[in-house]
Amino acid sequence: MASSFGQLFRITTWGESHGGGVGVVIDGCPPRLKLSEADIQPDLDRRRPGQSKIVTPRKESDTVQILSGISTTGRTLGTPISLWVKNEDQRSDAYNEMKDKFRPSHADYTYFAKYGIRAWQGGGRASARETIGRVAAGAIAKKILREKFGVETLAYVKQVQKISAEINPDTVKFSEVESNIVRCPNSLAAEKMIRLIEKMRREGNTVGGIIEGIARGVPAGWGEPVFDKLEADLAKAMLSLPACKGFESGSGFAGTLLTGRDHNDAFRAKDKKVYTTTNRSGGIQGGISNGETIFFRVAFKPVATVMHEQDTVDEKFANTTLKGRGRHDPCVLPRAVPMIEAMTALVLVDHALRQRAQCG
Amino acid sequence: MASSFGQLFRITTWGESHGGGVGVVIDGCPPRLKLSEADIQPDLDRRRPGQSKIVTPRKESDTVQILSGISTTGRTLGTPISLWVKNEDQRSDAYNEMKDKFRPSHADYTYFAKYGIRAWQGGGRASARETIGRVAAGAIAKKILREKFGVETLAYVKQVQKISAEINPDTVKFSEVESNIVRCPNSLAAEKMIRLIEKMRREGNTVGGIIEGIARGVPAGWGEPVFDKLEADLAKAMLSLPACKGFESGSGFAGTLLTGRDHNDAFRAKDKKVYTTTNRSGGIQGGISNGETIFFRVAFKPVATVMHEQDTVDEKFANTTLKGRGRHDPCVLPRAVPMIEAMTALVLVDHALRQRAQCG
Amino acid sequence: MASSFGQLFRITTWGESHGGGVGVVIDGCPPRLKLSEADIQPDLDRRRPGQSKIVTPRKESDTVQILSGISTTGRTLGTPISLWVKNEDQRSDAYNEMKDKFRPSHADYTYFAKYGIRAWQGGGRASARETIGRVAAGAIAKKILREKFGVETLAYVKQVQKISAEINPDTVKFSEVESNIVRCPNSLAAEKMIRLIEKMRREGNTVGGIIEGIARGVPAGWGEPVFDKLEADLAKAMLSLPACKGFESGSGFAGTLLTGRDHNDAFRAKDKKVYTTTNRSGGIQGGISNGETIFFRVAFKPVATVMHEQDTVDEKFANTTLKGRGRHDPCVLPRAVPMIEAMTALVLVDHALRQRAQCG
Amino acid sequence: MASSFGQLFRITTWGESHGGGVGVVIDGCPPRLKLSEADIQPDLDRRRPGQSKIVTPRKESDTVQILSGISTTGRTLGTPISLWVKNEDQRSDAYNEMKDKFRPSHADYTYFAKYGIRAWQGGGRASARETIGRVAAGAIAKKILREKFGVETLAYVKQVQKISAEINPDTVKFSEVESNIVRCPNSLAAEKMIRLIEKMRREGNTVGGIIEGIARGVPAGWGEPVFDKLEADLAKAMLSLPACKGFESGSGFAGTLLTGRDHNDAFRAKDKKVYTTTNRSGGIQGGISNGETIFFRVAFKPVATVMHEQDTVDEKFANTTLKGRGRHDPCVLPRAVPMIEAMTALVLVDHALRQRAQCG
Repeated sequence: MASSFGQLFRITTWGESHGGGVGVVIDGCPPRLKLSEADIQPDLDRRRPGQSKIVTPRKESDTVQILSGISTTGRTLGTPISLWVKNEDQRSDAYNEMKDKFRPSHADYTYFAKYGIRAWQGGGRASARETIGRVAAGAIAKKILREKFGVETLAYVKQVQKISAEINPDTVKFSEVESNIVRCPNSLAAEKMIRLIEKMRREGNTVGGIIEGIARGVPAGWGEPVFDKLEADLAKAMLSLPACKGFESGSGFAGTLLTGRDHNDAFRAKDKKVYTTTNRSGGIQGGISNGETIFFRVAFKPVATVMHEQDTVDEKFANTTLKGRGRHDPCVLPRAVPMIEAMTALVLVDHALRQRAQCG
Repeated sequence: MASSFGQLFRITTWGESHGGGVGVVIDGCPPRLKLSEADIQPDLDRRRPGQSKIVTPRKESDTVQILSGISTTGRTLGTPISLWVKNEDQRSDAYNEMKDKFRPSHADYTYFAKYGIRAWQGGGRASARETIGRVAAGAIAKKILREKFGVETLAYVKQVQKISAEINPDTVKFSEVESNIVRCPNSLAAEKMIRLIEKMRREGNTVGGIIEGIARGVPAGWGEPVFDKLEADLAKAMLSLPACKGFESGSGFAGTLLTGRDHNDAFRAKDKKVYTTTNRSGGIQGGISNGETIFFRVAFKPVATVMHEQDTVDEKFANTTLKGRGRHDPCVLPRAVPMIEAMTALVLVDHALRQRAQCG
Repeated sequence: MASSFGQLFRITTWGESHGGGVGVVIDGCPPRLKLSEADIQPDLDRRRPGQSKIVTPRKESDTVQILSGISTTGRTLGTPISLWVKNEDQRSDAYNEMKDKFRPSHADYTYFAKYGIRAWQGGGRASARETIGRVAAGAIAKKILREKFGVETLAYVKQVQKISAEINPDTVKFSEVESNIVRCPNSLAAEKMIRLIEKMRREGNTVGGIIEGIARGVPAGWGEPVFDKLEADLAKAMLSLPACKGFESGSGFAGTLLTGRDHNDAFRAKDKKVYTTTNRSGGIQGGISNGETIFFRVAFKPVATVMHEQDTVDEKFANTTLKGRGRHDPCVLPRAVPMIEAMTALVLVDHALRQRAQCG
Repeated sequence: MASSFGQLFRITTWGESHGGGVGVVIDGCPPRLKLSEADIQPDLDRRRPGQSKIVTPRKESDTVQILSGISTTGRTLGTPISLWVKNEDQRSDAYNEMKDKFRPSHADYTYFAKYGIRAWQGGGRASARETIGRVAAGAIAKKILREKFGVETLAYVKQVQKISAEINPDTVKFSEVESNIVRCPNSLAAEKMIRLIEKMRREGNTVGGIIEGIARGVPAGWGEPVFDKLEADLAKAMLSLPACKGFESGSGFAGTLLTGRDHNDAFRAKDKKVYTTTNRSGGIQGGISNGETIFFRVAFKPVATVMHEQDTVDEKFANTTLKGRGRHDPCVLPRAVPMIEAMTALVLVDHALRQRAQCG
């Protein structure tokens, strides 16, 4: 089940960086939802290569086709929705050297150790192209959350290497996120981030950073006690993204520096509605949403492909060196923003259906 | 499925803080493993209240009984192993005030919002007593990993509030962890931590901190691509623990401050064995183990129960105040160490069996 | 996951015929349902040994205890419900010969082949005692179906060896089923069945037969297309019972003798309500309920334990003989009736929740 | 999860009779297996319409394409294998009348009741085209069973309406099954069956019948106790096929007519190998394979589409009539044979991997 995610709104992705394409099957989608490719393509466009000067210049249109699950009147049938995106810009020769050598801090060696075989072209299944299926499915999840539950999911770049931005999760708007190519809604920080990424590209180097994900309008009561806590499922969702190395919810790691007296979120009530005066819990208590804004941060390591010679080994386990070539992202974050949104929406829509199932 | 964890080595926990007890059913355990209560009780003793002056003084022996799954010759049958721990020291009166009021930053309100009903005594299902089942099952998982796969899992306190300790994941020993009551293998830091926790207790306040979890001897190849990455499953496992607010693997959040050139782990080979010269990947690349030591850090917020009056609301959604009473942990970390070990072992044994299933 | 059943209303059974007892954990139960042991015990009493002269005279009260999941006010909390029944009448000496020999047509040999170890006392995990957990969980499922969805589940003995009974699934009543010890609501056939079973007992022989299961009041729309068809899940549920060798729904095997023209169920409508004029579909079309009475038949082979010497082999794979001893059922059907009801209810409540989750 | 099947070798099918096609994603396939379309197409050809005079004359080549999961050297990568078959011969106008009317004993009404929407063209998701994905995935499962485990799966037509054939499950050969267009390895019976089906076609009527499925070479020990018994999973697999109404294993329903003394299979040993002198258990005892030939029978009702006017209702729930038109199978059995083989293989390969996972 390596390739499936979700209990009730369940997606199964497939495909490698090279071959017939990538896709996703979505099972459990509520019926009668108006849906066409036009609902999905915009998020794929935010994810695709070549969209700006700070991402990889590879040319792939990433055009999505719906193969099943939609009625002739353009509504979901309740049956599996199959989405397919063809691979286009495949230059296997750019990867010739990788045929026998493992790229450092990539998945080449571990796939080989696991399976005794690997698709060496472009990372195979470990390629970021796999996330196309997630983003496409996530677009549907976002639509359901928005239209059926009044929930908005959003993500933005919070930090690139040492450049951090102040952003208010309660008020930030999608249009602000999309107002610049790095997807940081703080325009001053955004400019610095863009300059840094451009510098990295020129130097054949890379940087990582932090994305913040949020969900607004989630009613109190979503999420499960014990193992399928909302934070647990969000953490799994995020850590399942390529290059992700950390997750923290609400006050996160910094919260460990406070004492209990200072950390607790006081409850208050107004017009029979409960709220908290602070939100160090990040909208989740005991694994269950409390009605406040859900927010969390996700750490991405710097992209492993650098245009410099590095020590590595080959498939015969002999020492050698390898220098990155081809067209790569100097920073994965601008393209990872829609991935975070997608994974957030997938977790939430699944828990929305689970809550409806058990508690009516 | 809120209460089940694992695909092949699957545990299901049950029980509330008050009532007939807590327990766990373990399904999928390999047969013919020598197993008795004596393999499980030691880890429960490391988790139980009353074990030292810096944890809650509640008196519960947490004695485990095996109800099924073991042959008369003391070996696992391959069928479900049912473990039960009776509740003993229940003082419902200590919780009387909680009957109508929600404790701030606890799960009282969210459970109520979710289910429309809640077990208000001692936190009910959200009580840390639920982790007894995890620790008990984890003890079996640890035994399998140790005896069948040569894998050692370990955890220790890395930081309490602002007191941090230097510890080498490659060399730290279990005996060092257990050499003091705070379970920090750096004795100098441990002393400071103990003093801080004692101070917090005296002041009716609490602190949180960071635990580091490690696994040594994991062969390259465990873990799945895409959704069930080793890091993703570890992150979910950890974030499913009470009071956990963050997870980072290898270089984690700090890794975002490096460039790709500085962050990558170079491969080298010696005697046909591959290793990395650094381990910023934390033993996992592309979601799959690479043979290096797996290590990660887990953030625990300060305990929410403080002995001071705090603003809150009652079940009728009217404003009120509540002051913590009874016997509570001023710091959850010393008792959380065996929980981290358990969850780590549960994730790893599951992936060990999955690897054997698919790749033989 | 050998020991779990259900997607949303999920049960996990545990326990062997000898040892600490048998039990079940029920996860996903809707909250706030009034529930006590008194809701569960009656079905266990219908299943237990010693209830009449035609079943095994073993003395086990099979008294159920609820260990978790219920509030102090006697309502479900939404968290796992753990049920436990102690083993009482264990006479291991009755099984001494089985220690080294495999009983023909039992699971002794196959368990040994699978696990390399087995609990030879009383069949271990393959004992019919395992079904206690199912019947207990089923009692809760039946209550939910009855109170929340207006659905009634029922089963009865339709045939014992060659003695068959005419019964109308649309009108048969629970009180009729319970009016005699063989649980056949046709009193004439019931008398013959009882006489046959008594004869078998005297001769140290056994018989099997057919149970019919029904569900009335299921609304159109439960069940899933493709793999989780209602009939598929019912078939699995039934074939998972000990000694079951066949399942047929609606017209079943006999339906293969008709042509399409004669077999089809015509639709008619009255007051905007759709019904069928015949019910060869057994209330299910395309795997989904159509609002008519669901009915199906389940074949149970004759009990394998006979009081006569039979050829078999021992654990060293040498030829030998074995004669059944101890207290056994000459016919499993009277006690299997509540099992069929339980499994039916477990399947239906799961699909009720799934329907609510996806289609609202 | 309506559209997924299997725990470890897990398939997810998608697609409707009309639209972009049908397909399947296979997750969990062992790596390094030689695989190309040529391994899959032959079984699809046995399933496809237009293959003989006794099946529907629709013209669809059902050409399979592998979109992912295979290395450039033609071996499985261990990652998901995505298979796609385009829809070709779509004549929606043939279904115009079905747009508003429910075909009797089809899934039209129940889908509408469930989802509030339906794909009325050709049955939509309930179309037998969905089984293309199963047959394609089953071809891979069969190859693994054959090459890695020495297991052969086979199915054949045992009965068409009242014409029954004697066939020996221990010795029947694939070539005998394929020697005639009805796929009954008894040539005398086959001729009669073909004549009957041709007669039915001429009369615009249909017939059903019984297929027997077998597996030879399954080692003792596959299958799980309790819920995932081999028979339970086979029963579910079969009842999930369109038009299936019954399943029986080994002696099945007829076995209920014997007494225990006559029904039991005596064990014997030879050269330290255990076997049974009869095989009424059908190769499965306690849900686990015992090393004998596994065999079972599957009942298919007569095809619901007949070329005669029948009573039915429309989408407004008004009474009306409907006459079948277009190109349909007068008997589903010849094309269902590869479906039974596929589902058998999918169940077995899943249990083979599960056995390897838990018991090594």
